[in-house]
Amino acid sequence: MDLDDLRNAHPDHWMRAAAIRFLAMDAVKAANSGHTGMPMGMADVATVLFSRHLKFDASHPDWADRDRFILSAGHGSMLLYALLHLTGYEDMTLEEIRNFRQWGSKTAGHPEYGHAKGIETTTGPLGQGIGASVGFAIAEENLRARFGSKIVDHRTWVFAGDGCLMEGLSQEALALAGHLRLGHLTVFFDDNDITIDGRVSLTDSTDQAARFAASGWHVQSIDGHDPDAIHDAIEAAKADDHPSMIACKTHIALGTSAQDTGKGHGALTDDRLIEEARRAYRWPSAPFEIPQDIKAWWEEQGRRGAPARREWEDRVEALGGKSRALFDRMQTGEPPRKLTATIRALKKQLSETAPKVATRASSETVLEVVNPIMPETIGGSADLTGSNNTLTPDLGIFSAEDRKGRYLHYGIREHGMAAAMNGLALHGGLRPYGGTFMCFSDYSRGAIRIGALMGAPVVHVMTHDSIGLGEDGPTHQPVEHLAMLRATPNLHVFRPCDGVETAEAWEIALTAARPSVLALSRQGLPTLRTEHKTKNLVAQGAYVLADADGKRQAILLATGSEVAVAMGARDLLQADGIGVRVVSMPSWDLFEAQDETYRRRVLPAGPVRVAVEAASPMGWDRWLLGERGREAKAAFVGMRGFGASAPGTSLYERFGITPEAMADKVRALL
Amino acid sequence: MDLDDLRNAHPDHWMRAAAIRFLAMDAVKAANSGHTGMPMGMADVATVLFSRHLKFDASHPDWADRDRFILSAGHGSMLLYALLHLTGYEDMTLEEIRNFRQWGSKTAGHPEYGHAKGIETTTGPLGQGIGASVGFAIAEENLRARFGSKIVDHRTWVFAGDGCLMEGLSQEALALAGHLRLGHLTVFFDDNDITIDGRVSLTDSTDQAARFAASGWHVQSIDGHDPDAIHDAIEAAKADDHPSMIACKTHIALGTSAQDTGKGHGALTDDRLIEEARRAYRWPSAPFEIPQDIKAWWEEQGRRGAPARREWEDRVEALGGKSRALFDRMQTGEPPRKLTATIRALKKQLSETAPKVATRASSETVLEVVNPIMPETIGGSADLTGSNNTLTPDLGIFSAEDRKGRYLHYGIREHGMAAAMNGLALHGGLRPYGGTFMCFSDYSRGAIRIGALMGAPVVHVMTHDSIGLGEDGPTHQPVEHLAMLRATPNLHVFRPCDGVETAEAWEIALTAARPSVLALSRQGLPTLRTEHKTKNLVAQGAYVLADADGKRQAILLATGSEVAVAMGARDLLQADGIGVRVVSMPSWDLFEAQDETYRRRVLPAGPVRVAVEAASPMGWDRWLLGERGREAKAAFVGMRGFGASAPGTSLYERFGITPEAMADKVRALL
Repeated sequence: MDLDDLRNAHPDHWMRAAAIRFLAMDAVKAANSGHTGMPMGMADVATVLFSRHLKFDASHPDWADRDRFILSAGHGSMLLYALLHLTGYEDMTLEEIRNFRQWGSKTAGHPEYGHAKGIETTTGPLGQGIGASVGFAIAEENLRARFGSKIVDHRTWVFAGDGCLMEGLSQEALALAGHLRLGHLTVFFDDNDITIDGRVSLTDSTDQAARFAASGWHVQSIDGHDPDAIHDAIEAAKADDHPSMIACKTHIALGTSAQDTGKGHGALTDDRLIEEARRAYRWPSAPFEIPQDIKAWWEEQGRRGAPARREWEDRVEALGGKSRALFDRMQTGEPPRKLTATIRALKKQLSETAPKVATRASSETVLEVVNPIMPETIGGSADLTGSNNTLTPDLGIFSAEDRKGRYLHYGIREHGMAAAMNGLALHGGLRPYGGTFMCFSDYSRGAIRIGALMGAPVVHVMTHDSIGLGEDGPTHQPVEHLAMLRATPNLHVFRPCDGVETAEAWEIALTAARPSVLALSRQGLPTLRTEHKTKNLVAQGAYVLADADGKRQAILLATGSEVAVAMGARDLLQADGIGVRVVSMPSWDLFEAQDETYRRRVLPAGPVRVAVEAASPMGWDRWLLGERGREAKAAFVGMRGFGASAPGTSLYERFGITPEAMADKVRALL
Repeated sequence: MDLDDLRNAHPDHWMRAAAIRFLAMDAVKAANSGHTGMPMGMADVATVLFSRHLKFDASHPDWADRDRFILSAGHGSMLLYALLHLTGYEDMTLEEIRNFRQWGSKTAGHPEYGHAKGIETTTGPLGQGIGASVGFAIAEENLRARFGSKIVDHRTWVFAGDGCLMEGLSQEALALAGHLRLGHLTVFFDDNDITIDGRVSLTDSTDQAARFAASGWHVQSIDGHDPDAIHDAIEAAKADDHPSMIACKTHIALGTSAQDTGKGHGALTDDRLIEEARRAYRWPSAPFEIPQDIKAWWEEQGRRGAPARREWEDRVEALGGKSRALFDRMQTGEPPRKLTATIRALKKQLSETAPKVATRASSETVLEVVNPIMPETIGGSADLTGSNNTLTPDLGIFSAEDRKGRYLHYGIREHGMAAAMNGLALHGGLRPYGGTFMCFSDYSRGAIRIGALMGAPVVHVMTHDSIGLGEDGPTHQPVEHLAMLRATPNLHVFRPCDGVETAEAWEIALTAARPSVLALSRQGLPTLRTEHKTKNLVAQGAYVLADADGKRQAILLATGSEVAVAMGARDLLQADGIGVRVVSMPSWDLFEAQDETYRRRVLPAGPVRVAVEAASPMGWDRWLLGERGREAKAAFVGMRGFGASAPGTSLYERFGITPEAMADKVRALL
């Protein structure tokens, strides 16, 4: 690659793109850590995109109708930070760039949603960006269909590398995007032929263009350092109504002696090498200094979208009436005011009729009353619609033909679904939920975690939450999954025991500023909350469902389907004159968040405690033994290994998760 | 589909395939649960494969050179059980078929490895079979290159459905297989256009043939009910040296009124519908009865491979000498006798030299002495070779050109790697290990869990195991992962504190009959085991690393990189005259497996306890509060949320994981 040729062909462009490259090099050098390869390779594409195509206004980064730029190859974070700084995003100061990868900076090693405006989603674990981008693009199509293209009409642009495309998640994302014909989605593939281990030919022989084309994408392959070719390809992508993939042939760490090598992927911090690059680029400035004219030009690009943004604001203003109010409310993420009353009315009805149904069916009952009053919900399932009970009649199916549908057949793509839901939530305007079997949270965990880290308000509907699912056997029976999910920070985990708790859990999930998991039973469960209470008891995490009759000698702790087991044990023990309190614990995280006084009121130290859950004991000692000042007698009834294939009721017997077994434990402890 | 036409075209074949179909229907009907659609759709392909191509001998199901048949679409388990029963596998009796999906039967809802011979791997969670099959095929290529094609020369055949192919895992698997040109691998795609939610067109528009071709596969598309076409396609697949995908156009639930519908996917238990099918097929027998001549023909197929198997045994016999001994030992999975002495010698050396290195580097040191004496190891990394320290000089790289290489560049495919490792382990003859960052266990969890369920002796090398990795930030910093992995049944989890413990952990992992996870530090750690002991202390799970000087007032519990933190706290406290014991707990599961006497000796009830781990507190109360007869004073020092991007040492300070913080906790409790 002769840099002089490149520079001479497009001298202005060259220096503008070089500004990105040197900010990246300077920051990585200062941090002595990070990735220069990708920013140096993709700076030309980024320059063309941000200056000629991306719809944005740096002074109004939350403009709802802005284009979304997603750096799926998140390790190249300095590319994004450099662009935000150059175009004049207020919070991306030079100071932040200087503090790249340091405590408290907005410039984390990988782009972290919420740290700075312009970071549309957290990326780093590869494939998550492209996965989320499908959700962004679905949100745009759906809202455009519902509010009209004068209000919603923007694009989603993704930078993805070899790593993103090797991850299986990318296949789920691209197949879904192709199927749904998300024409406003464009993926730039940084086709540099290099990964950490070396040349891509070490690990892959895939014709990526053919692969995308096989799922209905519009594909192009260009020289990623030629601004004209980049511009033309973007125009062609815009003109096509399929999602577009533009393979950009680039040179990683362009213009350094590590160019086109595995070494060029990571942090270039060698002084000599950096000096070489400065000379090769004829870059005139000291570290962290951008020539005045170049910075001015970039800031102009940051203001380029301002007129369009103002016109859009006028159009929104002109919307008026209900549409305007709805658009605004959906954008804020505020639930409708009548949600509380709706949930209460349902709770009352459920307490009165006391049906014996699976909590997955109760969840459907909740959705039946919620979906009509919350037009922001957008549901779906990874090919288990009938089992997850996620589809209600009013939603309609979102498809290439029907953009107004509020239900997605995600296909057998749990990870793709979870990642897309993150994007749907972060886009704004929609509140996604999606179903699968709880065991398959194993597949979607990568996206669940990123969602928790971002506080993306997504609801993971996870049915078939224990051995209670029966015959499908141990591959389908969660055992350790509750522990895994409960251990994940910033994630609500709910395991309701009946329809009333399910309604309460949904209410919290639909108003929370973080993701939620609903662990729901396959099997029928009795209604235990037969006395109506307006208060949302699940919000306290745990509460006394039934107190001891007589002297309180034991406390039984339980969640979900096993609360009925505990109630059965209570009956047995009370019949023997042993006073037993049953505590339902639908949400550990919310109980942990209560003050100690409340926790001690629910779980006084004295009585023996026995917990029951058809799951791993991991974590239960917190509630069996924690915060107890004196001799702590406690036991756990649950799973000590994997499940088995047999009818669910038989499995509960075989694994000893029964009222009798619990009662025996209590008696043994007393 | 006119069944009469099909039957008339191939009358003998028709009735033989019908035997599979009706066993499946009868079993599903008896269980009132299961899947008939796939067995009915793919019975023709299975019949041709098992009667004319599959190399097997039902009387010797463990024949090392047999072909492997993998039902990736595991929900169609009755197809496999029917085939095993019909061909005369001893343990697949009619009684077992009658007990389909019942407690204690070998015929679980999904095929469970170890339940019956002929089940080569556990499947059910979609994509796992095709993922494992890549490992089987790599194992065959590698062992063939090393022992010659007279000893190793077999094929891997996979049945996969739309679900398998939609899962991202399938992309990682097929791209890897195509790149490695695994010519002995054939995937039959049950191209029936139906999933649970309905027609595939609801969720996917992918041209699967083009997608496989894009990764270098030989692809064909055939009528999956035409035995001649099936046979010809298999011959063509065998003749090509690329992996083969045969798209078999089939009709799900063929010949029932649920044919070609989403309903046909699941359990057909309607009496009328079953009766209809019996008439349509002209199937003469009562439920669970197979006409004598048909059963006899199938049993003949089960014996078809016996002569080849005997000839193979003669060839193995003729191998003689060292080769024979090595082949036999590798097949049994027994480690070489000198492993123990090798590990001991290394431990002694490490104790003497006491290097300060990261445990990931210690792990490399272990591999440097182990790989030369264990030719059965086959290593790899998901594109993090230099960071995972998984490559040693003697291994060579396995590739399309070099089949003898013992190291795999898996690419950025954590799930594909873990699934392939399951296959490598189950194939026999090899002991796989593979590296990635611990945080990306999120991506490979699906395969890790199946491996644990199967007891597949795989080693997951997971480096960068905490905030200690520093600047890459929270997306790359495990917090809840130790809890997730420890909660998984039948999985060893090791978090060694120095080189000596790392060597001991490897010794256990290389001899265990289950998978292991090694959680290893990025950052340098002091050698704490400076006194050489021949005994493997990690095998006890936890032990006293340093006892109190004077009266024992506190016990500090720690794992991995935080053991040094605990030792630092001990120094501070002992300087104040407070007697402190430090317990290193590299493996919770092995400590839990000790008898209570040992556990109480290590953790006597009295002293205050403070645990430290740069991870979620989930599960620690088991060791802080469990098995303590009196007032339990305890505290945890660790993470309460996600990490952050900053240098690792700064993060330890910021999150308060320091000797000083621990010492303060102890003082507060005393």
